[in-house]
Amino acid sequence: MASLHNAYAVIMAGGKGERFWPLSTSRRPKQLLALAGGQPLILQAVDRLQGLVPPERVLIVTNESLVAPIQGMLGEGSPVGVLGEPVGRDTAAAIAAGAAWIKRRDPQAVFCVMTADHIIGDLPIFRDTLTRGLALCAENDVLMTIGIAPSEPSSAYGYIEAGGLWKRSGHIDFFKAKRFVEKPDAATARDYLATGRYAWNSGMFVWSVRSIQKAFAEFHPVLAGKIAAWAACPDDAAFRRALELDFPALEKISIDYAVMEKAGNIVVCMGAFAWDDVGSWPALEAHLPKDAAGNASLGDVEAFDSASNIVVSEGRLTALVGVKDLVVVQADGVTLVCDKSRSQEIKSLLSNLRAQKSRDAIL
Amino acid sequence: MASLHNAYAVIMAGGKGERFWPLSTSRRPKQLLALAGGQPLILQAVDRLQGLVPPERVLIVTNESLVAPIQGMLGEGSPVGVLGEPVGRDTAAAIAAGAAWIKRRDPQAVFCVMTADHIIGDLPIFRDTLTRGLALCAENDVLMTIGIAPSEPSSAYGYIEAGGLWKRSGHIDFFKAKRFVEKPDAATARDYLATGRYAWNSGMFVWSVRSIQKAFAEFHPVLAGKIAAWAACPDDAAFRRALELDFPALEKISIDYAVMEKAGNIVVCMGAFAWDDVGSWPALEAHLPKDAAGNASLGDVEAFDSASNIVVSEGRLTALVGVKDLVVVQADGVTLVCDKSRSQEIKSLLSNLRAQKSRDAIL
Repeated sequence: MASLHNAYAVIMAGGKGERFWPLSTSRRPKQLLALAGGQPLILQAVDRLQGLVPPERVLIVTNESLVAPIQGMLGEGSPVGVLGEPVGRDTAAAIAAGAAWIKRRDPQAVFCVMTADHIIGDLPIFRDTLTRGLALCAENDVLMTIGIAPSEPSSAYGYIEAGGLWKRSGHIDFFKAKRFVEKPDAATARDYLATGRYAWNSGMFVWSVRSIQKAFAEFHPVLAGKIAAWAACPDDAAFRRALELDFPALEKISIDYAVMEKAGNIVVCMGAFAWDDVGSWPALEAHLPKDAAGNASLGDVEAFDSASNIVVSEGRLTALVGVKDLVVVQADGVTLVCDKSRSQEIKSLLSNLRAQKSRDAIL
Repeated sequence: MASLHNAYAVIMAGGKGERFWPLSTSRRPKQLLALAGGQPLILQAVDRLQGLVPPERVLIVTNESLVAPIQGMLGEGSPVGVLGEPVGRDTAAAIAAGAAWIKRRDPQAVFCVMTADHIIGDLPIFRDTLTRGLALCAENDVLMTIGIAPSEPSSAYGYIEAGGLWKRSGHIDFFKAKRFVEKPDAATARDYLATGRYAWNSGMFVWSVRSIQKAFAEFHPVLAGKIAAWAACPDDAAFRRALELDFPALEKISIDYAVMEKAGNIVVCMGAFAWDDVGSWPALEAHLPKDAAGNASLGDVEAFDSASNIVVSEGRLTALVGVKDLVVVQADGVTLVCDKSRSQEIKSLLSNLRAQKSRDAIL
């Protein structure tokens, strides 16, 4: 399928990614790391849109402090837009800002909302799904979520229950969405998987500027008003000034809560491409090369009589002797050693560290 | 007891200390590290001689490559001598060089041979033992070893069996030595401890220049000849040139094998001061401060729900989550994670690394 002349993309790159500390920090969150695939995840997210949306119609929305590092990664002269949020106000406000940026360029546009810090495979299927989704959303007043056909009964993701078939495009079925459900327990997740009617909520969406503005008008009128006001700014400088003035007062709310769980015109597909939000060190294991003893590693690592460890070394060397089932990370003068089954407790460690003023430099 | 006017000290500082890798490297071996006590071990070895031997009569013998770093640690204008061995030829040659250096200054001198990389406590007892040993050796043709009264049946040390009482000085008994024994197994070590007649071989000795030269003449004539030749050098430059010419051809042999295990005039005391050669990461545990969960640490360390680890951090931070019984060391961009019971295998790891040319910089 040919790409649309009025297709845009907003890449959401505001994540803090503290689960990958100490490799990720506030100055270098997960989306800026080359966790797999050799390139920073944010660049992979841009490259993934090749043939789908031309780079001058791609907008990265991120923390103000990450604008310069991301521009540096994109390289001088890159036509990709990078917009800094004056303060973080969650995904509804970020999407509203992106919608206004696009509306200033083409009020008839259709756009996809992409994530910056996920690992995606099977790119031809990914692109086909998005191309068809964009085409359908250009002609229909729907809010489309790109669901993922679950490969396992994960209790780490939210799910979307599919209802009746809405439209078929090529080999891809788009369904009316019945409901959004929060992360289920393991048993419930198994039930979901068995029905074949539930998709993982990937955080990727497709809609026209007109449809998302209409949905905001119904469910979050403040943001609908902001989209209209921001889009009416006479130039880029005025647009950025308006964001700076307006953002601090905006409600901190996700697009799921603000719109998706309330709207009646949601459609969902069962994305058949590989997708992983890589939400923790153990989740990264599947994406790293392994030695014969099952040690997954990134960077310069020597494992001596050690097995099943996850080792990431940005230093000169990380060496293991006689250990197993550990996460070992060395980055920028900080080393973390964590039992593989306890990686969810890194957050507790970080909140302890945050209480110590002198730790700011490493967080 | 007053110190002698002709007492000297040779501090043997040639050790490679690879057991403390990656904190210790060839460029910064154990004796240059502040493993405990806040100061580099070599400076502690110098300071320990205060009141016993004045600094201008102290000579550090070390690898040529460590002369400059050690002089840097001593500080500009330090009167302590630092002599570089042109090549490493074990302790017999190093002691012969030290004996010649002293003989050039005072052929009637008596000197103690001290170690640079051990941790010693109870300094008043240490100094009293050495002062009395030096006085006895100034007047008697003996080779004195400063044995250590064992505090546990260690199989990590060699032992010296004491025979009959030779002389008593103050509260200190000096015995005729019966024999040197290699590191025993655990059962034998327990037997030794039970008899009260065995001392740990600390590698510290006392003797006069005349007595050690006489012993070399009997058991290692080549080195006896070298002491005579080196001592006859007209100036320091000639002395150093002679060492450079002679050292490469010298036999690589320890003072124990070359002299001590053969001579009949060995005496030994049961040093009643705390002494530890700190031969491994686990041995360091006793010398580091511990938190409530038994984590021993040096440097910036955060242990979260972790117990009984040994953590040394020269980086910005080393953090543990949910781990126990590990040795974790971060130094100069290299991190080691080793099971506490497996630290003897660090040597195997290093020989693996040595086979990789590109690793030279971290070894």
